[in-house]
Amino acid sequence: MKLASLKSGRDGRLVVVSRDLARCVLADGIAATLQQALDDWQHTAPALAELAVRVEAGTVAAAMPFRPGDCAAPLPRAHHWVDGSAYVNHVELVRKARGAEMPATFWTDPLLYQGGSDDLLGPTDDAIFGSEEFGIDLEAEAAVIVDDVPMACSAADAAGRIRLLMLVNDWSLRNLIPGELAKGFGFYQSKPATAFSPVAVTPDELGDAWRDGKLHLPLVSHINGKHFGAPDAGVDMTFSFPQLIAHAARTRRLGAGAIVGSGTVSNYDRSRGSSCLAERRMLEQLAHGKAQTPFLRFGDRVRIEMFDAAGASIFGAIDQRVVPAA
Amino acid sequence: MKLASLKSGRDGRLVVVSRDLARCVLADGIAATLQQALDDWQHTAPALAELAVRVEAGTVAAAMPFRPGDCAAPLPRAHHWVDGSAYVNHVELVRKARGAEMPATFWTDPLLYQGGSDDLLGPTDDAIFGSEEFGIDLEAEAAVIVDDVPMACSAADAAGRIRLLMLVNDWSLRNLIPGELAKGFGFYQSKPATAFSPVAVTPDELGDAWRDGKLHLPLVSHINGKHFGAPDAGVDMTFSFPQLIAHAARTRRLGAGAIVGSGTVSNYDRSRGSSCLAERRMLEQLAHGKAQTPFLRFGDRVRIEMFDAAGASIFGAIDQRVVPAA
Repeated sequence: MKLASLKSGRDGRLVVVSRDLARCVLADGIAATLQQALDDWQHTAPALAELAVRVEAGTVAAAMPFRPGDCAAPLPRAHHWVDGSAYVNHVELVRKARGAEMPATFWTDPLLYQGGSDDLLGPTDDAIFGSEEFGIDLEAEAAVIVDDVPMACSAADAAGRIRLLMLVNDWSLRNLIPGELAKGFGFYQSKPATAFSPVAVTPDELGDAWRDGKLHLPLVSHINGKHFGAPDAGVDMTFSFPQLIAHAARTRRLGAGAIVGSGTVSNYDRSRGSSCLAERRMLEQLAHGKAQTPFLRFGDRVRIEMFDAAGASIFGAIDQRVVPAA
Repeated sequence: MKLASLKSGRDGRLVVVSRDLARCVLADGIAATLQQALDDWQHTAPALAELAVRVEAGTVAAAMPFRPGDCAAPLPRAHHWVDGSAYVNHVELVRKARGAEMPATFWTDPLLYQGGSDDLLGPTDDAIFGSEEFGIDLEAEAAVIVDDVPMACSAADAAGRIRLLMLVNDWSLRNLIPGELAKGFGFYQSKPATAFSPVAVTPDELGDAWRDGKLHLPLVSHINGKHFGAPDAGVDMTFSFPQLIAHAARTRRLGAGAIVGSGTVSNYDRSRGSSCLAERRMLEQLAHGKAQTPFLRFGDRVRIEMFDAAGASIFGAIDQRVVPAA
């Protein structure tokens, strides 16, 4: 099934969305919000699935048109948002561009950072930044929402606790990163509010594209309507989602509704394009001695989407404008 | 007023607590949970304050004994938990112990990291860890809960958005820190679930001890019943809470209920003792060439509390046992 949250209050209003993203129906009688549904997934999921079957059959009188512009993030605020960096070839490239060796352990020990989860942006919300000088960049990613995960959960066990998948734009402020990382505590100001796709989908919606804990489809990004990249999220993903979850849960429990991201999707096959400007700029630097593509400017638009084998949008598009703070 | 959350479901059940921590009453008619109260503070706070007056007067028939053992964290889960490192003399000491210079900017540019907020421990919950080899340590701190904070909020404006104060034990796994920080993305596995005091209090409960955005009282820690330290949280705090909030909000909004921590309380006057074992061990190393005090062992107890001028406990005690994972 496909779920979304219409903008309403702080936590949105849960709707079940038709597979073709044309129609939706309020899930009020089952759970008012997606967090409520996740808090009691064992009971709410069967009822939501039953409603989804009726939405698909077109037998729900209360169905209404589904408009991504009405959507908040599937979880407009969450209790945990942790983002991995699972495409290690991307990290290797970052290091190479600055002439640094990457430790060999990066191939076996996942990198991850914790992001802000009190302000998650809807798919068409403006992306608001204080200054173009911050070095505004997209990061197109996939993410999963998990059920409760016990401490020291194995990857094998974690696989069965993935409830939903989404697309992500993990907005990054590149020019704030070096100063912040030099301080030793990781990202904070350099990782502002993150945006999510209109719908979150259960793994079964992905059919064969969801296997080995990876999402085997191209993640398509456009900047100002121009194709930017379509690396395959299932290729060169060094750590699967279950491995990222197990790493996150080594010393802690994760609560139902925790979001775990993949990090910028990146393929060794550079003809697939990139999922962030930083990567393109590094490739330019390695090829020409100098980065040529600028970071984003106010007024730019970024669109991120994923299509099934038949060309239909699975999650709907993240499609945001870059806007200056008032 | 003083507020607490009795253990119930995922978000607890809000109670108003008497000033002497002896009695409490459910705030059901006003807000079922503390997060709900914070989501609409403008309307809930006056009603909660009115109830608090009646609890104090002893005129609420439904009042019941207040037992910290029944409490979850004031926010059993939150949407944002960011912890500063505002006592820069402590950071300076850490660097000194390993023979490294501290950048001068650390006196002007706050350090902070984002912690997990989906699993916040109640004041008497067991603190569960996978291994003593992780280097289990306390970090006694103070924290504030804020209302909505706009992006790029000034420190002056942030001061008026502080709604509640709490005590914190920011459990740290010292032996996991060097490896994690070396990877460059900051803490994650080394900062497991954090514990909070039984009650959160509005700033006015602190009288003159709350001024200049700092909490001017000793933070008292005991390990296994033995006095460990009582540095004054208002002394040597380089960045006030409003300054920490402004730093956190530079590139993002903070949502109502976001928790902002002070970092380990530490005074230049070392006779006050420490708020974490790491600091004591560094002082031992500097004095004797070698750390002598071990990190915590399973079965150890840590108690953290703060008292008013009359010797009464303000927040109740965080009093936890260190326990091995099953």
